[in-house]
Amino acid sequence: MTLAETLGHFAADCPADDRGMMRFVGFSLFDWATVGLAGIDEPVARAARRVALADAPAQGGATLFGGGQAAPAAAALANGATSHALDYDDTHFGHIGHPSVAVIPAALALAETRGVGGTQLMQALAVGLETACRVGAWLGRPHYEAGFHQTGTSGAFGATAAAGRVLGLDVAQMAQALSLAATRAAGLKSQFGTMGKPLNAGFAAEIGVTCARLAEAGAGSTPEAIEGAQGFGPTHAGQADATALEGLGDAWIFPAISYKFHACCHGLHAMLEALRKAQAEGIAPEAVEAVEIRTHPRWLAVCNQPAPATGLQAKFSYRLTAAMSLAGLDTAALDVYSDATCARPDLVALRDRVTVVADASVDDTASEIRVTTGGQVITAAHDVLGDSDPEVIEPRLLAKSATLLGDTLRARLWEEVCHIDRTGGPASLATRLATGAAREPTAALR
Amino acid sequence: MTLAETLGHFAADCPADDRGMMRFVGFSLFDWATVGLAGIDEPVARAARRVALADAPAQGGATLFGGGQAAPAAAALANGATSHALDYDDTHFGHIGHPSVAVIPAALALAETRGVGGTQLMQALAVGLETACRVGAWLGRPHYEAGFHQTGTSGAFGATAAAGRVLGLDVAQMAQALSLAATRAAGLKSQFGTMGKPLNAGFAAEIGVTCARLAEAGAGSTPEAIEGAQGFGPTHAGQADATALEGLGDAWIFPAISYKFHACCHGLHAMLEALRKAQAEGIAPEAVEAVEIRTHPRWLAVCNQPAPATGLQAKFSYRLTAAMSLAGLDTAALDVYSDATCARPDLVALRDRVTVVADASVDDTASEIRVTTGGQVITAAHDVLGDSDPEVIEPRLLAKSATLLGDTLRARLWEEVCHIDRTGGPASLATRLATGAAREPTAALR
Repeated sequence: MTLAETLGHFAADCPADDRGMMRFVGFSLFDWATVGLAGIDEPVARAARRVALADAPAQGGATLFGGGQAAPAAAALANGATSHALDYDDTHFGHIGHPSVAVIPAALALAETRGVGGTQLMQALAVGLETACRVGAWLGRPHYEAGFHQTGTSGAFGATAAAGRVLGLDVAQMAQALSLAATRAAGLKSQFGTMGKPLNAGFAAEIGVTCARLAEAGAGSTPEAIEGAQGFGPTHAGQADATALEGLGDAWIFPAISYKFHACCHGLHAMLEALRKAQAEGIAPEAVEAVEIRTHPRWLAVCNQPAPATGLQAKFSYRLTAAMSLAGLDTAALDVYSDATCARPDLVALRDRVTVVADASVDDTASEIRVTTGGQVITAAHDVLGDSDPEVIEPRLLAKSATLLGDTLRARLWEEVCHIDRTGGPASLATRLATGAAREPTAALR
Repeated sequence: MTLAETLGHFAADCPADDRGMMRFVGFSLFDWATVGLAGIDEPVARAARRVALADAPAQGGATLFGGGQAAPAAAALANGATSHALDYDDTHFGHIGHPSVAVIPAALALAETRGVGGTQLMQALAVGLETACRVGAWLGRPHYEAGFHQTGTSGAFGATAAAGRVLGLDVAQMAQALSLAATRAAGLKSQFGTMGKPLNAGFAAEIGVTCARLAEAGAGSTPEAIEGAQGFGPTHAGQADATALEGLGDAWIFPAISYKFHACCHGLHAMLEALRKAQAEGIAPEAVEAVEIRTHPRWLAVCNQPAPATGLQAKFSYRLTAAMSLAGLDTAALDVYSDATCARPDLVALRDRVTVVADASVDDTASEIRVTTGGQVITAAHDVLGDSDPEVIEPRLLAKSATLLGDTLRARLWEEVCHIDRTGGPASLATRLATGAAREPTAALR
């Protein structure tokens, strides 16, 4: 069987009824909607929305983050870019990228416009997210190092699988759709730091919608388009790691997904989680004498701004974000990273008692902290790779959503996701994307 | 200046008023409309049209080959695929691909929907076709050999330049649009022989429309997206041939474009043109004693079916197409390549008097023929690279169009192209794409 056929079988026919796995699919759907709504005013979101709205279909459009309706492919593009605009969405280390921002907008746009039920949508998301992760792992680190952005490339295959499942493609059609995606999948890492990065997610989502619909309409492609001679993998430095496909359909690698709980550089997250543990012992910020942070040396060139002056610099500062966390600021909030926060005398004083130590014995997904307060020393450590307990994740996702969107919208979104299988569930969730995010900045500065 | 800026300057500001060059742009526009109309019933055209029509905008759509209106990006995709469906469109050997099928549908869809005038459309086509050829040459043979299909990849840059010129983007916006195209440009040669090949042209056209509109709406990208570290060229085996950009804006490489005058494999064209010269001496087919064809050895594995039985095989047969040409059949027609033609006793008898000789001293764009008739020997030779005289090309294009579409539609199309700069010219031409091609098969079998 060709790779397109193997993935086509999985995407078209796999039951996708593992309850533990499906809980993570729900988490990702909820978190995706949260960060998308939080991103609607970003410049890239405005630009993509403007383009999508210019050609609104006569009837039956898909809802855009921020309001309005557009053709499914255009909506997938705009919603993908919007949900990745803040870079606050989920990450999968095996996939080497962000699965949800490519997969979910493709499936939801088609589910809304075709009137597909919530159970089918959730199955589509499961096979789409899993396909993105499997293909990302199959392409592997060499593909990423060569300059390709798996969020865009393997994201296109995941989006196609999800879109095809929503359309109810049979195995042969699904394989054709995935083979067509092979001649379109794209996305360069050299776009990082520009609107091109979030757009790569949107472009992948658009590919998913279009290739699935072309296959539904009878378009065909070459069967070995992914792995064959001059197929996508060989032409894009893919390592073709066969182990990445082992157990497909029985075991699910997608639930190793990582959620972001802090609106700053990923390199700071393990430190902030370790501080969170230490704070359970009730640390008074004014009583802190010294803080020592041990982290892998690679992060020092990334996020060790010693004395940030702007909100953007604050997002890349161990010392200031540690002070913010100890002082009780909500590091999940967007607007807490401000010039004013950088200038606050109490935070600056606390920041200056923080020391950052490079330590190659600490994993690059981990951090160790040591807080001296009132003559006492409190230590803690954290590795973000270990965040896999759904009972821990759920309340954190709810808190993040409340911080970003306010309690009312958070509650409505969670309700929509929990009851996605009621009649009209996907369309009902989709209409929530049109909500203006009712931000409550004061909550972030409580 | 970055490559995106250099190309952005050219595409946004170049006057594009060289009359000799513009004549070729008109030829390509006419030939593109001709082969697109001839392709409307191909399966890939039907599939792409069905997808585009599903989301017709409430107002102001772009006309599709075969009828109906769609959003500009969707129309560009469908019209690009339709015009490349027969593989009968123009070819540029420096570009290593088919420029018009990516560039023209992008520009025309936007010109129609924005009400842009014909002079601006023609300038947009000029800079778009030139950009496609320049980028194709800059990527070079190594890019093609690595598996990439320049029709899709450099086509995306050309389509973006053309679309951006129609929108009136300034230099900075144009550079942004081209940089966004760098993270989307794609297309694999391994799709050849499937619907993926014509779709690669349509996908490139869609990229042009979308990236130009995103830049118009304020989206940005990284300036060195094409040639920089991990930009499009370095990640896609581009050879970065700086000579490919020499004289940009002063000299035009696009007019070296080749048109196809026979509806069969390109490898047969030089031979058919040589026979055409020989026939000027008035050869009676029944009097032909022997025909010898000398051709480069590479073609023998491509198009030397000695005794074809099907219409498809006939398109890859030196011996049969030579017999067809000598017997006066119109090799520009589509339906002349039929099972019935393969079985015609007079043609089979003539075919069996044809000998094909591999000769490495003959260029692979050339052919030499030697016809023995009534004891006399007539020789002729032709190289398709030499077909650059517009006075020779124009009547051939008109004859091809008449063969494919009939005299009435041919005349209307030519009139539209010749008067594209009258008020509403682009929209008037675009509405012709909705015409059902009034084929006159008897003309082909005259």
